[in-house]
Amino acid sequence: MEHLSWSRLEKTVARAAFDAALAREVAAIRAEAEAILERSADPDAVWRVHDFLTDRRRAIERKYDYRYSVLISVFGRLLHEGWIGEAELAGLAPEKLALIRRSAEVSR
Amino acid sequence: MEHLSWSRLEKTVARAAFDAALAREVAAIRAEAEAILERSADPDAVWRVHDFLTDRRRAIERKYDYRYSVLISVFGRLLHEGWIGEAELAGLAPEKLALIRRSAEVSR
Repeated sequence: MEHLSWSRLEKTVARAAFDAALAREVAAIRAEAEAILERSADPDAVWRVHDFLTDRRRAIERKYDYRYSVLISVFGRLLHEGWIGEAELAGLAPEKLALIRRSAEVSR
Repeated sequence: MEHLSWSRLEKTVARAAFDAALAREVAAIRAEAEAILERSADPDAVWRVHDFLTDRRRAIERKYDYRYSVLISVFGRLLHEGWIGEAELAGLAPEKLALIRRSAEVSR
């Protein structure tokens, strides 16, 4: 994917989709942390929250890599996992969209 | 403090006081984690919770050391910080209580 060039418009579209996916996933992580606390009044549940957040934070840092050389597969995964919809990628060249869709299928 | 011997009764008293202090401190940590989330609806607040818990968990692991060789200074600190009251140490030998009080003062 390193040979692909990204136009200014494509970069804007990509950045917005990337940021929206990240915001959604962080919101979901927050909701799950709150749910862990709601499910148990045990003070020690706070350590389960800590373990959960440690794990999710590492995963987020690995997954959300905005380098253009890896962005196709990042979007493929986000599409597969449902953190972005195809409509948010409108504006990318058809070639890139096809590669992202294929990458999403490979993620299965 | 390594020369002190602990009777069976003293060990029971010490263990109960130690466990009660730990339970109180963990409950306070949980309450503060919940307060961080309540103060901010921003999803990213969950990372502040994570940083806070990482810090507090390390501190708890360092502080709550039940080895008899260090227990006097552990209780001194817990007394100084208010996680135990003197009444909870009733049953310990007067020599130990005096050492714990002195340790609490040194903690200041």
